[in-house]
Amino acid sequence: MFIAMNRFRVVPGSEEAFERMWLDRDVYLRSVPGFEAFHMLRGPAHEDHVLYSSHTVWSSKADFEAWTRSEQFRAAHSRAGDTSRRAMYLGGPQFEGFDVIQTIEA
Amino acid sequence: MFIAMNRFRVVPGSEEAFERMWLDRDVYLRSVPGFEAFHMLRGPAHEDHVLYSSHTVWSSKADFEAWTRSEQFRAAHSRAGDTSRRAMYLGGPQFEGFDVIQTIEA
Repeated sequence: MFIAMNRFRVVPGSEEAFERMWLDRDVYLRSVPGFEAFHMLRGPAHEDHVLYSSHTVWSSKADFEAWTRSEQFRAAHSRAGDTSRRAMYLGGPQFEGFDVIQTIEA
Repeated sequence: MFIAMNRFRVVPGSEEAFERMWLDRDVYLRSVPGFEAFHMLRGPAHEDHVLYSSHTVWSSKADFEAWTRSEQFRAAHSRAGDTSRRAMYLGGPQFEGFDVIQTIEA
C-alpha cells in the first residue's frame, strides 16, 4: 500500500475557487489499475494560507508510478499550470509519497 | 470523516528504533468510539531527517477530540516525552488535522 499526497497552500480568499475546481473536475482515476481511494483534505488555516492536501491510496508504489506515466495522467494535469490557477497558490504543490508500514483497523 | 496526522522528522540512524517503537507499542485505539483506521507512514528521506507520519481516520472531528480527552489517550502518550525518545527527532511532532471534502473510490 502506498499513499501519494500533494500539499497545496491556498491563499486566503481562494478557498472556494480551489474547492470548486476539485469538485467539478473530470475524474480519470476510477479505472486506473491499483487505484483504491482518493480524498481531498482541508487542513489548518495559517496567516497567509490554508493547507489542503490531496491523498490517493494505491495498492503499490509501482501502480502509482505507472499512473504518472499514463495518458490519463497527462489529461488530468493538462491545466495544472494555468496562470489563473497558479494565482490561487503560495508556491507550487509539494509532493510526498508514503509507504504504509503499519495498519490497524477498528 | 476527519484525518489526524502527526509528522515526525526522524534523524538518520534512528529509523529502525522509531519503527520498532511504533510496531511494539500497546494499541488503545481499536475500541475507541469513532475510530476507523490507523496507518504509520514512511515518507521521503531528506539530508537531515526521514519524514514519517501517523495517519488516523475518524468518523468525525468530535470523535477525535473526545479521544484526546480520554484516559486511553493519556495512557497511550505517557512516554512520548522520554529523553531517549526525544533524541530520535528533529524537533517535536507536527500535528495537522484534515476535514475530508471529497472522496472517490475505485
